[in-house]
Amino acid sequence: MTKPTPWKRKHLTGIEHLEPGELETIFETAESFKATLTRSNKKLPSLRGSTIVNLFMEPSTRTRIAFEIAATRLSADVITVSGNASSLVKGESLRDTAMNIQALNADMIIIRHSAAGSAKYLSEIIDIPVVNAGDGAHEHPTQALLDAFTMREHLGKDLRGKKVTILGDILFSRVARSNIWALTKLGVDLTLAGPSTLVPKEFEKFGVKVSHKLKPALADADAVMLLRIQHERQTSTHFPSLGEYTSMFGLNQLRAGYLKPDAIIMHPGPINRGVELDSKLADSGRSVILEQVTNGIAIRMAVLYLCGSYKDQKKGKA
Amino acid sequence: MTKPTPWKRKHLTGIEHLEPGELETIFETAESFKATLTRSNKKLPSLRGSTIVNLFMEPSTRTRIAFEIAATRLSADVITVSGNASSLVKGESLRDTAMNIQALNADMIIIRHSAAGSAKYLSEIIDIPVVNAGDGAHEHPTQALLDAFTMREHLGKDLRGKKVTILGDILFSRVARSNIWALTKLGVDLTLAGPSTLVPKEFEKFGVKVSHKLKPALADADAVMLLRIQHERQTSTHFPSLGEYTSMFGLNQLRAGYLKPDAIIMHPGPINRGVELDSKLADSGRSVILEQVTNGIAIRMAVLYLCGSYKDQKKGKA
Amino acid sequence: MTKPTPWKRKHLTGIEHLEPGELETIFETAESFKATLTRSNKKLPSLRGSTIVNLFMEPSTRTRIAFEIAATRLSADVITVSGNASSLVKGESLRDTAMNIQALNADMIIIRHSAAGSAKYLSEIIDIPVVNAGDGAHEHPTQALLDAFTMREHLGKDLRGKKVTILGDILFSRVARSNIWALTKLGVDLTLAGPSTLVPKEFEKFGVKVSHKLKPALADADAVMLLRIQHERQTSTHFPSLGEYTSMFGLNQLRAGYLKPDAIIMHPGPINRGVELDSKLADSGRSVILEQVTNGIAIRMAVLYLCGSYKDQKKGKA
Repeated sequence: MTKPTPWKRKHLTGIEHLEPGELETIFETAESFKATLTRSNKKLPSLRGSTIVNLFMEPSTRTRIAFEIAATRLSADVITVSGNASSLVKGESLRDTAMNIQALNADMIIIRHSAAGSAKYLSEIIDIPVVNAGDGAHEHPTQALLDAFTMREHLGKDLRGKKVTILGDILFSRVARSNIWALTKLGVDLTLAGPSTLVPKEFEKFGVKVSHKLKPALADADAVMLLRIQHERQTSTHFPSLGEYTSMFGLNQLRAGYLKPDAIIMHPGPINRGVELDSKLADSGRSVILEQVTNGIAIRMAVLYLCGSYKDQKKGKA
Repeated sequence: MTKPTPWKRKHLTGIEHLEPGELETIFETAESFKATLTRSNKKLPSLRGSTIVNLFMEPSTRTRIAFEIAATRLSADVITVSGNASSLVKGESLRDTAMNIQALNADMIIIRHSAAGSAKYLSEIIDIPVVNAGDGAHEHPTQALLDAFTMREHLGKDLRGKKVTILGDILFSRVARSNIWALTKLGVDLTLAGPSTLVPKEFEKFGVKVSHKLKPALADADAVMLLRIQHERQTSTHFPSLGEYTSMFGLNQLRAGYLKPDAIIMHPGPINRGVELDSKLADSGRSVILEQVTNGIAIRMAVLYLCGSYKDQKKGKA
Repeated sequence: MTKPTPWKRKHLTGIEHLEPGELETIFETAESFKATLTRSNKKLPSLRGSTIVNLFMEPSTRTRIAFEIAATRLSADVITVSGNASSLVKGESLRDTAMNIQALNADMIIIRHSAAGSAKYLSEIIDIPVVNAGDGAHEHPTQALLDAFTMREHLGKDLRGKKVTILGDILFSRVARSNIWALTKLGVDLTLAGPSTLVPKEFEKFGVKVSHKLKPALADADAVMLLRIQHERQTSTHFPSLGEYTSMFGLNQLRAGYLKPDAIIMHPGPINRGVELDSKLADSGRSVILEQVTNGIAIRMAVLYLCGSYKDQKKGKA
């Protein structure tokens, strides 16, 4: 198991370029924050007096709220720019929007954007920390961090050799991409499973197994992570359709029987009950889905704290 | 007059099941909070460090803001989820939304929802306090509490035997329903008035009078509470139409002459000036409509404080 | 140069009726607030415990956020009512909306509204301070204040005799109107430039020069302020069209050569890059556009602080 290494990053734009030791640092920081979540006064003074802009240029109530709560718990002030108001002005470029937010004296930007690479791009043009809350089909780093953090709690802190299967629409999933980076760095034995149209063999280049057969992909797993199947499959000509997916790959009671008794079931949410996951399984004792949600607060507190505490030596900031 | 009884509830989902002594407890708590509203620093530390989610799944700027201000005055952090963003995810059930909000480590949920019974339902499935901010045609308890609180200020703390007339579209009004529960528990001599299509005789089973004649319904009243007539009557085939209602039951200068000189005029807002209420009467000295708005802050502070301070002995929480 | 005079106003509805000494007071207050913007804890306790309602009845992410940040830095709680939710209720008058916000126990209203005179109107009917964040084509006082404040930083605190040219769509611009009031009061030698359809000769009655020729209007200027050309010109029958404007009056590299080497380029934002302003010029060393954005925080802190600290002797408030 890797030792935590000192945090020396200003931005979190993805998992791809993180060192395993940096992941450990995030996990250990999140552990200490998680312990504060059940206190009656949950606020910590860490980021008091700083202003965080939650720039959500793609709709996401769930992730936006999680970041907002995490920032508030660290005593930061949060300004949310979202929905229709998200391009600060019609036709204004992302660059101008970001430069303006920085000039407005914000201390950090959390960005959700439909374009892959947008968080990285911002980090290159502005001086304040940038945290990626999901950029197109590229990465969703805090989701992967909270997933791995939840596995650590259930499978043990050393995830080397643990068997994890991600099942579903992998092809365009930023959640899957960030999890592939995170879990392989942590030494997990990772299998991507689902129909070949959604899980092409090419993914093997990332050092993972690809399986188009459900039974073997489930049989060995210590954890199985389901991804949401998009509802647009209901009306489109995609293969498989929503109904086909459910009948072939949906995790129902029968197929859950393939799993080891102590295997955990994960899902980044929101669940399509009865589509990729049987409703009773989602609520069963082996589901850790709501724990993932709670861990998302602790992980995001850790990321905001670490990036927000970064000391910019070039600028001599304290 | 009933004595206040200790508060032993975690949720406020309606007035129907409250004891008169519990109403008194809310009123006395609200009185002490009202005294803080005019201080220069209006914040109290009562709920510092707790996160309240304002889940408004039906539009309501007015009630939403009132709860937001009340929570802020108690130093809570408020996350508002409203409007189009209100179902955390398209197609997600209310249950999953609520379970997720709880997993996000919120301390209380204030819910406005178009389905009658939704607040009660939430209170049965989650562990944190639930406050009903209006559920379909069922109840709007904080509105009735602020109405009764305002009557107490003007008619005396003991409302037994006071004559109150509620006039307007009673049939589907959650405001009327909650007021019927509250005012009858407090011993008020309550009359429901309006056209028979909006005020059916069946309401008499609640121990109130039903009157379809305006003059006698107004003549004895110590307070008359008008309800908003919905604008959809303008274009629909409902009887009475907006115009018919105004000509038959609108409170104009002439009809206000039926009232006792010191009778107060109430309205939960927003007023349709010139429809159910003459504009000059709305702004006259006998109108207490804006006092109702102010009292709504004090009442909601009391409700958030009481439910938020509930000690869950089963869980051993402080 | 004028001396600052004590602040005796409750509202800021426009620049027109301010004394030069009051402008100086705002600038000096903003200077001291600007010094706090780079501290690690940026919050000041000045307005702790007060609730400011940001009533944005016309869309504006940029100005709304700037006011929200300014208020938060002074430790006020901010409730934003904006976008579709902006009329508290469909069909409710601005007067009723404002009376309700006051009754909700707010301490100050910041209003953006499409009707000229709306801020002044509010200030006459409610008891709490009203700050104008833009009312129709009338005034946008905090924009003019931050513009003049930025000029002071670059051209010297005494602006008397300095030459400033405002270039663009002056006719219906509230930014231009407020700047005309502010800059003439400060003794600036002001030129309004652009095509005659957008800059009619009638403006000369304000004691400014009007020029329809670009070269002389730029040659002497110590500062040139560009206004945004509205995109609706692209598809409409207005003269000039967007393309015509750019070719005749857009500030490009060639025309920037007419400027003195140390002249500064200003723009209230958002920029249409390549329309009224060349993209490279916008990012060049002579552009102070992002400094204007930052100064907007300091100026708005000053305005909120001064109006919020107003002592209402009639009411004996502290």
